[in-house]
Amino acid sequence: MNMGKVVGTVVATRKEPSMEGLRLMWVRHLNEQGEETGGQVVAVDAVGAGPGEVVLVASGSSARQTEATDKRPCDAVIMAIVDHWEVGDREVYRKDQEA
Amino acid sequence: MNMGKVVGTVVATRKEPSMEGLRLMWVRHLNEQGEETGGQVVAVDAVGAGPGEVVLVASGSSARQTEATDKRPCDAVIMAIVDHWEVGDREVYRKDQEA
Amino acid sequence: MNMGKVVGTVVATRKEPSMEGLRLMWVRHLNEQGEETGGQVVAVDAVGAGPGEVVLVASGSSARQTEATDKRPCDAVIMAIVDHWEVGDREVYRKDQEA
Amino acid sequence: MNMGKVVGTVVATRKEPSMEGLRLMWVRHLNEQGEETGGQVVAVDAVGAGPGEVVLVASGSSARQTEATDKRPCDAVIMAIVDHWEVGDREVYRKDQEA
Amino acid sequence: MNMGKVVGTVVATRKEPSMEGLRLMWVRHLNEQGEETGGQVVAVDAVGAGPGEVVLVASGSSARQTEATDKRPCDAVIMAIVDHWEVGDREVYRKDQEA
Repeated sequence: MNMGKVVGTVVATRKEPSMEGLRLMWVRHLNEQGEETGGQVVAVDAVGAGPGEVVLVASGSSARQTEATDKRPCDAVIMAIVDHWEVGDREVYRKDQEA
Repeated sequence: MNMGKVVGTVVATRKEPSMEGLRLMWVRHLNEQGEETGGQVVAVDAVGAGPGEVVLVASGSSARQTEATDKRPCDAVIMAIVDHWEVGDREVYRKDQEA
Repeated sequence: MNMGKVVGTVVATRKEPSMEGLRLMWVRHLNEQGEETGGQVVAVDAVGAGPGEVVLVASGSSARQTEATDKRPCDAVIMAIVDHWEVGDREVYRKDQEA
Repeated sequence: MNMGKVVGTVVATRKEPSMEGLRLMWVRHLNEQGEETGGQVVAVDAVGAGPGEVVLVASGSSARQTEATDKRPCDAVIMAIVDHWEVGDREVYRKDQEA
Repeated sequence: MNMGKVVGTVVATRKEPSMEGLRLMWVRHLNEQGEETGGQVVAVDAVGAGPGEVVLVASGSSARQTEATDKRPCDAVIMAIVDHWEVGDREVYRKDQEA
């Protein structure tokens, strides 16, 4: 999965019918130091993520393994909201510290 | 999904029979600031997109999850036409402003 | 799909039995301006393409959606020979001009 | 598969229900010389890997071919812990030397 | 498929049970000029390839379309040993010349 930060929302009225009702979010990729890598993706939100939250994005066919995205033309899904992560002995990110 | 702008059309007479009747479009990738990233792809159009429009492209096996592309050798499909998007509090793109 | 130019052929005698009889081609990737991007791939030819021709290549599981490649360990297939393409009002490529 | 080194752990409470109970690890990619390539991924651990261990990561739909990850929105799985590897006549990595 | 050269072997004792008995090889990617591109992958060998041989590697779900790799968490497989290839009128590689 890619780590990422939700930075925006996308609205598309004309689309594949199966995509109706899904929320589309801009996600910027983060590395294990919490730095932006320069990559980004538009992902379907399957877990109620909001702008500013740090999330995990699954890509490819794995992006269709949620109830929200099953059999839909979706290649990226937010499938988890991250609470915290550690690298070595150092805590790099904790959600509470963001609030 | 990748955000992109439709910049051209491709015509191929000799092709896999299952690809007959599908419209092929050149799409340049955009980042969340609306800037071109330097990437591009040829995608099947599943939603009636036209040159100049900003669209979402699904890739890989997810590109076959539309009626137009089911079971075809297609790895990229335009599955939505974008109306507008926001990053933080800023509106980066709105379709009406393009017209 | 990736746009590409067929630049060579590959011969492999010892291989997965299911790959017998398939033609393998070197394809250099092209961008929408017809310039080489520096990328390349070895693809199975499903449409009778020859050296010098400009083609579309489907990748991943979509590369198995042709009669020639079904259920085979093939992740790239030439599934169309390109006649011409336009970007904006400009014709970038036309096959007849190559002949 | 990608070679990588486990460098950290990720905790996510709010997630797709099917992801419950899976351990998420930060993995930095290594090349055949044992050097970091600059890439990284968050992978599900299917083999009991721990921080500091060198592992193999399978990506895409192949990441779902373990009991732990079957039918889940997971696109990267640690499916082996590496004991040692050789390039040419040189042993580049051996687990015992790390301990 | 990616062209590559087998440069080493990997041993992993603790792994997904379905991976037992498979040989893991380090493969460096080559471009159509026979030059290393800087990329590399660990692939399962399905055709009896050895160090120094030039091979084709199939990736993604296509890597599971061999008897050796079916339904296993394997995303790269060596599915052919290359005898020779030509680019334009020039022979770039021939196996006999390597021996």
